[in-house]
Amino acid sequence: MDINTIASLINAKVVGKNFEVTGMATLADAKPSEISFLSNSKYAKTLQSTKAGAVIVDENSQKYLPENCVALVVKHPYWEMAVLSEYFSTPIEDDNLEDAQIAQSAKIAPEAVIAKGAKIGENCRIMANSYIGNNVEIGDNTIIYPNVTVYKECKIGKNCIIHANSVIGGDGFGFATSNMGEHKKIYQNGNVVLEDDIEIGSCTTIDRAAFGSTLIKQGVRIDNLVQIGHNCVIGEYSVIVSQAGISGSTEMGRNVVMGGQSATAGHLTIAPFSTMAARSGVTKSIKESGKTFAGFPLMNHRAWLKLQGKLARLIK
Amino acid sequence: MDINTIASLINAKVVGKNFEVTGMATLADAKPSEISFLSNSKYAKTLQSTKAGAVIVDENSQKYLPENCVALVVKHPYWEMAVLSEYFSTPIEDDNLEDAQIAQSAKIAPEAVIAKGAKIGENCRIMANSYIGNNVEIGDNTIIYPNVTVYKECKIGKNCIIHANSVIGGDGFGFATSNMGEHKKIYQNGNVVLEDDIEIGSCTTIDRAAFGSTLIKQGVRIDNLVQIGHNCVIGEYSVIVSQAGISGSTEMGRNVVMGGQSATAGHLTIAPFSTMAARSGVTKSIKESGKTFAGFPLMNHRAWLKLQGKLARLIK
Amino acid sequence: MDINTIASLINAKVVGKNFEVTGMATLADAKPSEISFLSNSKYAKTLQSTKAGAVIVDENSQKYLPENCVALVVKHPYWEMAVLSEYFSTPIEDDNLEDAQIAQSAKIAPEAVIAKGAKIGENCRIMANSYIGNNVEIGDNTIIYPNVTVYKECKIGKNCIIHANSVIGGDGFGFATSNMGEHKKIYQNGNVVLEDDIEIGSCTTIDRAAFGSTLIKQGVRIDNLVQIGHNCVIGEYSVIVSQAGISGSTEMGRNVVMGGQSATAGHLTIAPFSTMAARSGVTKSIKESGKTFAGFPLMNHRAWLKLQGKLARLIK
Repeated sequence: MDINTIASLINAKVVGKNFEVTGMATLADAKPSEISFLSNSKYAKTLQSTKAGAVIVDENSQKYLPENCVALVVKHPYWEMAVLSEYFSTPIEDDNLEDAQIAQSAKIAPEAVIAKGAKIGENCRIMANSYIGNNVEIGDNTIIYPNVTVYKECKIGKNCIIHANSVIGGDGFGFATSNMGEHKKIYQNGNVVLEDDIEIGSCTTIDRAAFGSTLIKQGVRIDNLVQIGHNCVIGEYSVIVSQAGISGSTEMGRNVVMGGQSATAGHLTIAPFSTMAARSGVTKSIKESGKTFAGFPLMNHRAWLKLQGKLARLIK
Repeated sequence: MDINTIASLINAKVVGKNFEVTGMATLADAKPSEISFLSNSKYAKTLQSTKAGAVIVDENSQKYLPENCVALVVKHPYWEMAVLSEYFSTPIEDDNLEDAQIAQSAKIAPEAVIAKGAKIGENCRIMANSYIGNNVEIGDNTIIYPNVTVYKECKIGKNCIIHANSVIGGDGFGFATSNMGEHKKIYQNGNVVLEDDIEIGSCTTIDRAAFGSTLIKQGVRIDNLVQIGHNCVIGEYSVIVSQAGISGSTEMGRNVVMGGQSATAGHLTIAPFSTMAARSGVTKSIKESGKTFAGFPLMNHRAWLKLQGKLARLIK
Repeated sequence: MDINTIASLINAKVVGKNFEVTGMATLADAKPSEISFLSNSKYAKTLQSTKAGAVIVDENSQKYLPENCVALVVKHPYWEMAVLSEYFSTPIEDDNLEDAQIAQSAKIAPEAVIAKGAKIGENCRIMANSYIGNNVEIGDNTIIYPNVTVYKECKIGKNCIIHANSVIGGDGFGFATSNMGEHKKIYQNGNVVLEDDIEIGSCTTIDRAAFGSTLIKQGVRIDNLVQIGHNCVIGEYSVIVSQAGISGSTEMGRNVVMGGQSATAGHLTIAPFSTMAARSGVTKSIKESGKTFAGFPLMNHRAWLKLQGKLARLIK
């Protein structure tokens, strides 16, 4: 799709030269052949460092664009990005892809569905009623229990275990909202990547990225009923206990422990070897590694214990 | 089923004339051909305004019934209603219904199950291993991802998306409890109605109503692992973030935002354009629209911030 | 497997006589033909009362073993137990078992999968796309809704209802962690036992025990999206409301009520007829029965109300 076609889809004024656009990405990640967007005019200065070939902007923000970067000027850039995201989405199921490649030693239950383009490694076991979408790749020795859904284009490493009824790669919770309060879906055109040696519990959901990948690194342990939002990065050997929820775009280092029913806000970074007690709610990034926290808003675990002591005295 | 038959099923004394009963409903919703019940003798005065043709009551409450309304007098009306609810339930699967009507343009995966009596609209996509129950209606262009379960009699509008492994129309959590602590199931004879343009995440559960409908209005966005209790009404364009739980019979206006892991008690009303921060616990109805809240018990968001400041000072 | 074979698998020094080992169990439950392990050298004195025929211990703890009990001395007993647990696990699916025994009156959907060795009772209904694992036993009149997964060897009683997309018997969240922060799976070689007259909601997960059984007693009611950890015991007629999480090895008496989004820490005991308000977090065992609690950390419900009053005054 070229710039002029895009401009007509979103009613944009083009400032710059036409070129063939290969994809959409965030300002930070976009390459010269890609189009990006300014989600909020507050952050207009971040435009200056983008390598995107074109950006959807509003009139006021246009001046911050780097030289040679094409501007697509619209009134509501975030909404128009949502409109455009649909055009960059691939089909939900594509029957024109090549047949799935399944290693001879893999055991695929007859009631499992392996969509076209998928690649299943040696000694894998895909159990009954699971669904493996188009172009999904699964490494050697991985076990997928019954009734699991893996959406198209996700990648799962070697020696992983995914327990029953979990969902890998469902759409992230992304939409633009108009002044009238109506919502427009942002197509989630990224995927989920699970590295090797990961175990994921039952009824857990890991959302695909809007752009790029939601990444679960080697050796992670995730319990049941956990939510991992789009574009998160979960560090190596991290442990996420049941019913915890990690909001979108949060990145944690290795060996982070998230207790049961804990949660994080979005767009945070959490230092390696941090431990959150059960029910912790992480509201700010954590910079120093190796500490233990509790409470909501989050505080040092000792401070939380002290606070509970003070509160207990309040009612005596 | 007529009144005399019902009376013999629940060992009731009948005060009034026999008639053919067409269904069960709450006191507020029951029509003259229907039977209702008094769930708690504390609310006996609400009997006065019912239009039900018959009501299951205890001896003390009987006097509040309107003239011409038949009384079925029992010791434990709520328990006997539970007993009776089974007789008004339809079969879990009814093979005597007509074949499902599936629009020619709909794509139904061969591994999906469409039960009898269902109607599937134009351009719908029902993916592998999903189950669509008896008499379910699905509007045009709706997408049902793999491993979704839609229970019998639910209605889903046009242009909806339901992500993998979600459950629409499972039984609400309803039972009567005896003095000995044993439970009797209240059959959930209502359904779930989803209007148009709704998107629902993965592993989310929306329970069918005990009587009438659980109603999700146009344009609502629901994230993963969310619980919507029986008989809730979710207003247009409302946004319910991951792991939130809406207790039974709570009604919210349009564009309400429920943050991640937030919750409401049951039987509340929430004014339109209300926003609950993550982890909010709504304990009372919200009457004024457009405000932002936080905390549990719920308070104004500014008050919550102030409280956190005070608490932080407590431990310094 | 005999002691010498085990010793070579985990590089242990054997102190005592070789014998044929029939299984693994905890120190409290192990029989003379079984092997156990010391999970933490802090608890070395608990070795004195074990009936295990052999125990994996470290050098310092060995001296607390009863006479005639064989010691397998290693550096990291918990890690080596995890290594060994794999050798005591049964296959995920065993095609050499006998065909499933299905009562003539049972209705099994053609799209349901019943693995070998399973026994399905009279009048059971197993709906589409559910998976019933090896050697699972299901009592008369039990209903399994669509897309449910029941892992191998679990037992479900009579007159139970399991709603759609729930998972019974998934692996408990168990692993050993090395000094380098890497995790080793502890195979969950126990099962889940559901007694009679139990109803379980949608997308709920009940984990199998590491050793022995996770036990749900007669008449229990569990709502949607609930997590029950491995080795829990849920007392008769207990009620667990949506999104509650019960951590591993917690035991509750009869008629305990756990409110919505409530939780418990692990290894607690909760007295019968205890009630936890919504969002309660049980941090200590509850010894006196019949009380109502709230808050996190947990307190008497009245104390919690008083605390909220004090906090409200703080910000006035």
